[in-house]
Amino acid sequence: MLYRKEDIVMIPCGIPYIFGTTKESGKNVLPDAPLKNAGVEVIIGEIESIDCNERQCKSESGELISFDKLIIACGSTPYTPGWLEGSQLDNVFVIPKNKVYLDQFKKKIENLEEIVVVGAGFIGVELADELVKGNKKVTLIEKMPQVLPAAFDSEIAEDAESKLIERGIQVMKGVGVKKLDGQNSVEKIILDNGAEIKADAVVLSMGYRPNTELAEKCNLKINDLGFIQVDEYMRTGVPGVFAIGDCAEKRDFFTRKLSSTMLASTACAEARIAAMNLYSLSILKTFSGTIAIYSTAIGETSYSTAGLTESQASSEGYQIATGIFEGVDKHPGCLPNAHKQKVKVIASKECGTVLGVEIIGGISGGELINVAGLAIQNKMTLASLLSTQIGTHPLLTGSPAGYPLIKAVEAAWKNCK
Amino acid sequence: MLYRKEDIVMIPCGIPYIFGTTKESGKNVLPDAPLKNAGVEVIIGEIESIDCNERQCKSESGELISFDKLIIACGSTPYTPGWLEGSQLDNVFVIPKNKVYLDQFKKKIENLEEIVVVGAGFIGVELADELVKGNKKVTLIEKMPQVLPAAFDSEIAEDAESKLIERGIQVMKGVGVKKLDGQNSVEKIILDNGAEIKADAVVLSMGYRPNTELAEKCNLKINDLGFIQVDEYMRTGVPGVFAIGDCAEKRDFFTRKLSSTMLASTACAEARIAAMNLYSLSILKTFSGTIAIYSTAIGETSYSTAGLTESQASSEGYQIATGIFEGVDKHPGCLPNAHKQKVKVIASKECGTVLGVEIIGGISGGELINVAGLAIQNKMTLASLLSTQIGTHPLLTGSPAGYPLIKAVEAAWKNCK
Repeated sequence: MLYRKEDIVMIPCGIPYIFGTTKESGKNVLPDAPLKNAGVEVIIGEIESIDCNERQCKSESGELISFDKLIIACGSTPYTPGWLEGSQLDNVFVIPKNKVYLDQFKKKIENLEEIVVVGAGFIGVELADELVKGNKKVTLIEKMPQVLPAAFDSEIAEDAESKLIERGIQVMKGVGVKKLDGQNSVEKIILDNGAEIKADAVVLSMGYRPNTELAEKCNLKINDLGFIQVDEYMRTGVPGVFAIGDCAEKRDFFTRKLSSTMLASTACAEARIAAMNLYSLSILKTFSGTIAIYSTAIGETSYSTAGLTESQASSEGYQIATGIFEGVDKHPGCLPNAHKQKVKVIASKECGTVLGVEIIGGISGGELINVAGLAIQNKMTLASLLSTQIGTHPLLTGSPAGYPLIKAVEAAWKNCK
Repeated sequence: MLYRKEDIVMIPCGIPYIFGTTKESGKNVLPDAPLKNAGVEVIIGEIESIDCNERQCKSESGELISFDKLIIACGSTPYTPGWLEGSQLDNVFVIPKNKVYLDQFKKKIENLEEIVVVGAGFIGVELADELVKGNKKVTLIEKMPQVLPAAFDSEIAEDAESKLIERGIQVMKGVGVKKLDGQNSVEKIILDNGAEIKADAVVLSMGYRPNTELAEKCNLKINDLGFIQVDEYMRTGVPGVFAIGDCAEKRDFFTRKLSSTMLASTACAEARIAAMNLYSLSILKTFSGTIAIYSTAIGETSYSTAGLTESQASSEGYQIATGIFEGVDKHPGCLPNAHKQKVKVIASKECGTVLGVEIIGGISGGELINVAGLAIQNKMTLASLLSTQIGTHPLLTGSPAGYPLIKAVEAAWKNCK
């Protein structure tokens, strides 16, 4: 039985695109048919409390639902900065995974012109890009000194930034937001450095927080980053109770340190692992820590990342070697729709293990990063990647002799010496 | 020092496209700059003989070139069936990696209308598709009961065949060629079943044979399939003499049986391995046998393969389980340029090890097959793939919950029980 709050569920990573490309939230719906076909009973409603000893949940309406096994997958909610003066003004939005809210948000900004997006993570960047396509005047503000700071080293982020600027977005980096100002509706945003920007609407895209209220109510342990504690099998401390997805604890693949990177793809892997270990434990199917593989696209250009960036790896304390190669995603490069493909590889200098990969490319970059992700997951070294076979085709990939991922590996390998 | 016959080198897998997409062979040239920048001296000419004892080669012009290490990378030549009556007629062509020949071939067929391509492997299929784009009337003949017989199981090949037919190619399967007929130029082709087809030109795309003449002259061992024998490090039996690429022995990744699949990507992996083992041997960098990862595109549809097909795996004697899933390569599926993505996974029933993957998709299929290839190379099992993290993005990949590769793995896993 799947108990869920939302009648209609949004495809989470598709949300920014309802503001432009897909045009309406109704086209971004996660269908229920696969669930129902698989024999899942879907109930719309909210669970109010869980009694782990009695093995039962209580719904808002007072209904009692008993369980043998319970999986908490409550997801995450946009971070709303309580400290930010003016964040309660009209036309200040966040980006929740909620169709009703999103439809209202979209309707309200329809006739507004100047929109400020706060936070240049993937969602902020994608939303800004969609809004500018709809002829809004968009300003994107990022506190860190670069866009997409969690995902990319600065040289890759600069490429993304220049694409955003090309497309008409005003990008301001290295500056935080001090307050929002206006009568009823927001009228302007005041930055840390004193600058003021006119704003008909403000979108706060400042991250998400795990939904752990329900878990806390039944005394499940919460970790220091605010996620429900789980083990390798996604089990909480209470027998038969699992947690998965954005609300569940994540650890970095290499360091095993707690991580707060929430991704649908990680959530899906966790879900499979929980399901496969629900009734009997498997030695083969455990969660090996988050590699944080993700990607975005600005126009025809994709930006993808897997594992640690150079700056993350360095600050963790790894001695690293990096390699960069810029090639083309078809061969010869004169073929129609060929796109630059630039790959950066970050590896351990000690043993050559690949720690991270960043890619600028065309459409195929979104799958190429999964090649990198699988290499990381298998703890492959630069040497083993150099002897790896890669399939190529003129219309589909870089050339076998100039395949950017392998050439970047080669460059990193030379830098290991 | 690189000694080579051709003044200008064709990008091998780009050759079919000079007949349509790239329009001219001059746009399909492998540049020399990377070689020269790497400090390679390139000499145009032919080596006539090698004296392994004296450690020297003799060129056609009588020049003696001494060596410490020698790498034979003589490539392959199109198979020309000596037994085929009429194969010497005018306007009967093969597809060698030779710019001069290809330019003449292209010029000669310019005003010809009806062209028959014999052999529906990748090159035959691609050439037929390019010719039909140029408004030729094209017939494609394949002796085996399906197109692309070495790469795909019949259900995938049928999809490719229907695409070819849609695009105006007449496809005839399960029938061999008996003879070619004509006065000076070929006029018709007569099939095994007695059928006759009018032909202004015939292209024989019946496979390639390794170039081993030079190797035979200096008594290097040739294997039963006609390739130069090599070990895991691409070493021939003679100390300091290596062979790589189409002329060098290949073995299947799983069975270690001799293989005759020649691919540029395999050649590149072999080249790197030979180079990395030239002066001192490495435990880390050995050639693990050919996985045969390759792909093609017919219009917007890509067809990709890695490892063994179901029929190959079965006939080798593996107990197998397969899984198929058909999804979309973007999410939601209503996004522009979304393409069907169908994945077939073939695995060992005994241990779940992935033996092969076949994909029908859009542009991104060409990199998705490399995800599969890396899984095979790492001897990953269905179970480990089920707990693998895959990066996804609405505009770039299938959805995390419906990612066709993982869903096909899931289906195969269920079939393992």
